[in-house]
Amino acid sequence: MQKIICDTLIDAGHVLPIAPENRAFKNHGLVLQGDRIAAIGPLPTLLENYAPKEHLSFPEGILIPGLINAHGHAAMTLLRGVGEDMLLEPWLRDRIWPMEKDLVSPEFVATGTELAITEMLGRGVTTFVDMYFFPEITADVARRAHMRCLLAFPIFEGVTNWARDVDDCFRLGFELHDTARGNPLIDVAFGPHAPYTVSRATLERVLMYSQELGLGVHIHLHETAAEVAAARAREGRSWIDVLDQIGLLNPQLQAVHMTQVTPAEVERFAETGAHVIHCPGSNMKLADGICPVNTLDAAGVNVAIGTDGGASNNGLDVLHDARLASLLAKTEARRADAGKASASLYKATLGGARAIGREDDLGSLEPGKLADVVVFTPASLAAWPLHDPFAALLHHGSAWNANAVWVGGRRTVADGKPLLIDTAALRGRIETQTRRIAALTARG
Amino acid sequence: MQKIICDTLIDAGHVLPIAPENRAFKNHGLVLQGDRIAAIGPLPTLLENYAPKEHLSFPEGILIPGLINAHGHAAMTLLRGVGEDMLLEPWLRDRIWPMEKDLVSPEFVATGTELAITEMLGRGVTTFVDMYFFPEITADVARRAHMRCLLAFPIFEGVTNWARDVDDCFRLGFELHDTARGNPLIDVAFGPHAPYTVSRATLERVLMYSQELGLGVHIHLHETAAEVAAARAREGRSWIDVLDQIGLLNPQLQAVHMTQVTPAEVERFAETGAHVIHCPGSNMKLADGICPVNTLDAAGVNVAIGTDGGASNNGLDVLHDARLASLLAKTEARRADAGKASASLYKATLGGARAIGREDDLGSLEPGKLADVVVFTPASLAAWPLHDPFAALLHHGSAWNANAVWVGGRRTVADGKPLLIDTAALRGRIETQTRRIAALTARG
Repeated sequence: MQKIICDTLIDAGHVLPIAPENRAFKNHGLVLQGDRIAAIGPLPTLLENYAPKEHLSFPEGILIPGLINAHGHAAMTLLRGVGEDMLLEPWLRDRIWPMEKDLVSPEFVATGTELAITEMLGRGVTTFVDMYFFPEITADVARRAHMRCLLAFPIFEGVTNWARDVDDCFRLGFELHDTARGNPLIDVAFGPHAPYTVSRATLERVLMYSQELGLGVHIHLHETAAEVAAARAREGRSWIDVLDQIGLLNPQLQAVHMTQVTPAEVERFAETGAHVIHCPGSNMKLADGICPVNTLDAAGVNVAIGTDGGASNNGLDVLHDARLASLLAKTEARRADAGKASASLYKATLGGARAIGREDDLGSLEPGKLADVVVFTPASLAAWPLHDPFAALLHHGSAWNANAVWVGGRRTVADGKPLLIDTAALRGRIETQTRRIAALTARG
Repeated sequence: MQKIICDTLIDAGHVLPIAPENRAFKNHGLVLQGDRIAAIGPLPTLLENYAPKEHLSFPEGILIPGLINAHGHAAMTLLRGVGEDMLLEPWLRDRIWPMEKDLVSPEFVATGTELAITEMLGRGVTTFVDMYFFPEITADVARRAHMRCLLAFPIFEGVTNWARDVDDCFRLGFELHDTARGNPLIDVAFGPHAPYTVSRATLERVLMYSQELGLGVHIHLHETAAEVAAARAREGRSWIDVLDQIGLLNPQLQAVHMTQVTPAEVERFAETGAHVIHCPGSNMKLADGICPVNTLDAAGVNVAIGTDGGASNNGLDVLHDARLASLLAKTEARRADAGKASASLYKATLGGARAIGREDDLGSLEPGKLADVVVFTPASLAAWPLHDPFAALLHHGSAWNANAVWVGGRRTVADGKPLLIDTAALRGRIETQTRRIAALTARG
């Protein structure tokens, strides 16, 4: 019988496809053709049916879909460690915002984003959602690194280092959308910062454009109790209520943080199909409160995982935050069988894909989906014994390295090293930004 | 002026001595002579005064005292991943305890302990407290790896794979104490498992011997709400009350977990000088509840950090658990300035030394103390920029590797590789144990 010629066959000791069954399979393989997954199955079967141009074998590896970091501010990686252990408001007001005012430029964003991508690739992330200034620069960097991203371009009322005013934000965002149209790696969404930094009129414009263009809306929502209390005092309702009235609770909504939610609000999210982006590392570090994920899960709300910016985590390790999600779920439920490792890994893959409207072609190892794929291999002897691959990645992720990464069928990491990042040049540019930051810190 | 000849001079970009000041110093060095720290200071000053036989420079490194893992069951590393996401009681009763019955032997303990030590060295741990069967085997393995340990030999009422009964536990423990006496790396303590697995009479014996011999008492205490409720039902008081009445609340007590404590109990700990070993990763994973560390800190109770066994974490990364300690403290206090990185690093070093009665010679970089020292260096570009070395280790520890480790002035890790572990042979022995475990799992 004639075998089917294909580009790549990858086999691994353990394969976790996430869907259609959230199970672990041993000694399975994946066939890639072009930018897609062509087949998945037991290795012997695949070898019988396919003639791959390239066959890569990872007998000690765990093969999963590329992880999706559903919320972050990539360039802020350069500010990691600035103003540690400060109360949230002084931290933002006295350290972060003044520094951003002085620092944020195309070069700052290019360097910080490339650094963030380098780190994320090292931890198996193939898609990141970014909400930061100069998203057109972020798009360039992602394109060169062959990294998939959703750019939630910022929408603020006043002047920022990037845009003159809110109209300028929209103008620049639409320009980005036009130029990105041809590139399958770059998606665009609206990124109205938060309901308290963006006017009602602007939110209504966002809804209108979002529906016209079929683009997502990515917003910080109910991050802290103080934020919700201020809304009640000012508006007489919560911000979720405000968004609901405008019509923004719908399947395009990507609501980040959501640490404070009433049962009625959970119900509205479930009814409307709006998504929640859970950022446990950041929420704990900034003492925001904890997103009630068990409740959201029980109500059928889709939850994805985000690391948030490097300055409030401080890693960009989606597995790390997925682990926190599991630990918090167990703690909140007071049951060790809550927050299952497989459920948290789902949130970090297919949950993320659903949140960004890409469940049809991302987030799981299924024929027809895009070939965004990661193989983790042991970083040391500490990886052994391997009794449970879900637990290995979730609860002992540090013993596993992202050895091999493919985005859209193209190899971007081999032997743990990123193939499309000039790390030496990047180091130099990081140094330059570090000196700028140090000069500011010394002055301030 | 004649320079002082010394064995080793280590310098690093950042030095965190923990005491006398919990601060970060730049471009400082450490002088080692024999098994001790001879001096610490700015590198130029040390170079003026000392003539080291060996000078090791880590300009990109962070130099700290060796981390102290104040609670664990090292050999259980072999059971990492067995019975994940199960409720606590069925997990222990139906998976772990039956498997231990079949598996625990000198070879199981030797292999599991050596694996645990290899992992811990890779994360900068130089002292571990262990509570497991065949502690005399653990002592052998630790001795060969030149790893410091406190062996809290188990005390159980009934028969175990190690001892016939409680008298046998004491007999074997005293034997261990005698043979270990000559070795500065091995300390011994009493390890009565928990107040509900050990009789009152046995606890009274432990107190008596502990005071006679000046040895510590290491016990699981108030790990779950169910445990405390059972005590109240059975004894009419809490287990802390029971230990208090016996007289076990004193500076030799190392109380592990302590997730449930009343204000009066916190007060008793503060008054008596008893120590708490905080195991946040394990407590969260097993849904035990969270130890109220902010309250303990405020009351002046000494808190140390433990990873617990590999099967309920699942790593043996003290920095990881120290990070959880910080995040939980911020979350509980609802203040981002709680749970400071420096405070959690203290718990993982000098707090641990105090808990095991070794604050005079361990836990900080001070002249006269034992030379248990670690240098972390960047694992990747993700380590940069480095704005805050405390935060770098606590909140971004995965970007840093334990490159160099000394225990008692002797180098045990170089270039991130353990010098005294035959990793190839160990891999083979892990395989053997893995097959035994797999056979049991298949049967069960």
